[in-house]
Amino acid sequence: MSSGPRLISRRAAALRAYAPQPWIYSRGAFSLGQVAFDHFPLRVWSNLVARHSRIIHPSAFLYSDPRGTRDFRETIATYLRTARGVNCEADQIMVVSGSQQAIDISARALLDPGSQVWLEEPGYRLTSDVLSLAGCQLIPVPVDDEGLNVAEGIRLCDSARAAYVTPSHQLPLGATMSASRRLQLLDWAQLSGAWIIEDDYDSEYRYGNMPIASLQGLDRNSRVIYIGTFSKTLFPSLRLGYMVLPPDLVERFLTVRRAMDIYPPYLHQAVLTDFIRQGHFSRHVRRARRIYMERRSKLVDALRKQFGPELPILGAEAGMHLVVMLPKECRDVELAKKAAAEKLWLWPLSLSYLGRNVRQGLILGFGSVTDAEIPSAVRRLKALIETM
Amino acid sequence: MSSGPRLISRRAAALRAYAPQPWIYSRGAFSLGQVAFDHFPLRVWSNLVARHSRIIHPSAFLYSDPRGTRDFRETIATYLRTARGVNCEADQIMVVSGSQQAIDISARALLDPGSQVWLEEPGYRLTSDVLSLAGCQLIPVPVDDEGLNVAEGIRLCDSARAAYVTPSHQLPLGATMSASRRLQLLDWAQLSGAWIIEDDYDSEYRYGNMPIASLQGLDRNSRVIYIGTFSKTLFPSLRLGYMVLPPDLVERFLTVRRAMDIYPPYLHQAVLTDFIRQGHFSRHVRRARRIYMERRSKLVDALRKQFGPELPILGAEAGMHLVVMLPKECRDVELAKKAAAEKLWLWPLSLSYLGRNVRQGLILGFGSVTDAEIPSAVRRLKALIETM
Repeated sequence: MSSGPRLISRRAAALRAYAPQPWIYSRGAFSLGQVAFDHFPLRVWSNLVARHSRIIHPSAFLYSDPRGTRDFRETIATYLRTARGVNCEADQIMVVSGSQQAIDISARALLDPGSQVWLEEPGYRLTSDVLSLAGCQLIPVPVDDEGLNVAEGIRLCDSARAAYVTPSHQLPLGATMSASRRLQLLDWAQLSGAWIIEDDYDSEYRYGNMPIASLQGLDRNSRVIYIGTFSKTLFPSLRLGYMVLPPDLVERFLTVRRAMDIYPPYLHQAVLTDFIRQGHFSRHVRRARRIYMERRSKLVDALRKQFGPELPILGAEAGMHLVVMLPKECRDVELAKKAAAEKLWLWPLSLSYLGRNVRQGLILGFGSVTDAEIPSAVRRLKALIETM
Repeated sequence: MSSGPRLISRRAAALRAYAPQPWIYSRGAFSLGQVAFDHFPLRVWSNLVARHSRIIHPSAFLYSDPRGTRDFRETIATYLRTARGVNCEADQIMVVSGSQQAIDISARALLDPGSQVWLEEPGYRLTSDVLSLAGCQLIPVPVDDEGLNVAEGIRLCDSARAAYVTPSHQLPLGATMSASRRLQLLDWAQLSGAWIIEDDYDSEYRYGNMPIASLQGLDRNSRVIYIGTFSKTLFPSLRLGYMVLPPDLVERFLTVRRAMDIYPPYLHQAVLTDFIRQGHFSRHVRRARRIYMERRSKLVDALRKQFGPELPILGAEAGMHLVVMLPKECRDVELAKKAAAEKLWLWPLSLSYLGRNVRQGLILGFGSVTDAEIPSAVRRLKALIETM
């Protein structure tokens, strides 16, 4: 029998290859996106999981609201109003599997194939992947120490339909978006009819200065889709996050989300509702913040001690990672491959760039590195850099 | 300040409105898609959940394979080879949140905006929604008592890029696809370079004749994306299903899935791996099959008794629902609304049609209806129909 072609979609064909690099999936110094699992309140958590799995209410056997359970959405709304200055009611909350799905839903609800979107340059590559998959045209806009350069964005593409930003702790360079940039971004969005996708990544972990309220809370025109995740505060394999929708978009987002995967799983919504309401969540975040702050100080000290001022450190004021800039001649991908062979996990900064103006550096996670490991890991890093 | 438009995507704007009809979300006679939760082995299940939540392995705190855990994929592959004649290895399995996400991933990996897709007419409206959202052009192809009419599909659109089918128990009319139609469909796909999306919905529950092996198992050319779900065998709010991919497509599906939501949640994969390996799953399916068979017989008997041969019954040989055809002048949506006011849940068949050739009928679920409830519920149905 003759045989037809094996066509895949143009969108899928255009996505960069999925390469399971060792630094993505390994544990230890300085693996990225990993939490202090040794300090996770596992007993409290597993007691709640056990309790909720024994008493599944018959309604948990039904299909239900694509946004998630009412109780969980109320709990998230209360938390976000208090902790992040987000302007929201439970009706606007949609439970998702994490920031990635939230961006996917937003793109499909708001953007058409060919729609232009501002992205932070450098930025998180999975964000550009999901927007490419939705058919968007990516407009990389440079960031500086005030976050996304809005004037430059307007110069590059005033008519963009959306901007994706990580204002609390820019991923990966770590800047906090300044107040004036926030207002400038909101003004542009309102004037031009664009949407802002605010990924409030790492907002729970700020050291030094006071926490900064969300962009969403500043917005008087409902232009912001606010996104948050429990991947960093609890653990990533939980796959739970949330988005806050402008009231007039709720119905369309519901329709889109229902078509994509109907509704989110039940058990962990019930568990986390109790975990938050009983105060375990804020206790855990406070404790984790202290732990990450110590790890960060240890890491910064060790880097200064080994390298002096020659390697600039960026973005250490928040979150669970910082960036060490490398001299131009030191290729970060090559260094990361060498290091991986010695079980030292370095995420190359250069992979975070979409455009040509690429800088070499290392994104170092300190979420799951113990204080004791840090000095020797930094010594090994120094030795490796010297071989380059 | 002047204000720009509030544009949403054309795809989102085109989706039919999300209308939370009472018959979708209510429990009792004859709600659809509901399992016999009163017979669910909750103790065994919750013990496994409790155990796995106490002993989370550190690796569960990491990001991992977008396909799901190795152990779970091995378990699913073994089950599908044995129970469904599916030709597969663990590498080809991708764990998803259910059939809906599996179709979404398939559409985005394989189809372009404008790609034509055969859909069963009548069919499941959420399937047409997810394909529309991916930009596909829907080609409704009529079904008869042998399933999808392949010759008619070829006549309507020979060049379609894919066909979506539910060969085990056509949703909603309930036909099992005949062997000759299966071969005809596979031949067309191979000749024309099309993909077949096989949603093996309700395959676990067959009464009467022997189970029929999957289309995927018949396919010698790796043209079939096989989809299954635990929503019907366990419960829907678990949000767990799986797909079996042609080996040469695995890498692209991985890339697409990673961009969409990175990877599936951990806990229930571990729980279900044990639940299946320890034999609880097949025991539960056997018991549930007996229960549904009894409920089905009770329902068919009650319908025959009340209506005689005047209302034809379709699709009672498998699954957890059957269809009662209504006379043309009896409008099913109107009937369903009236019934809902009396807490009787009827799913109108007419909503399952994309084209104009619409038939009136009722899709009656018997998954969560007890034997005792059935006769009186059917009497109430008869009384309601008489008022129309």
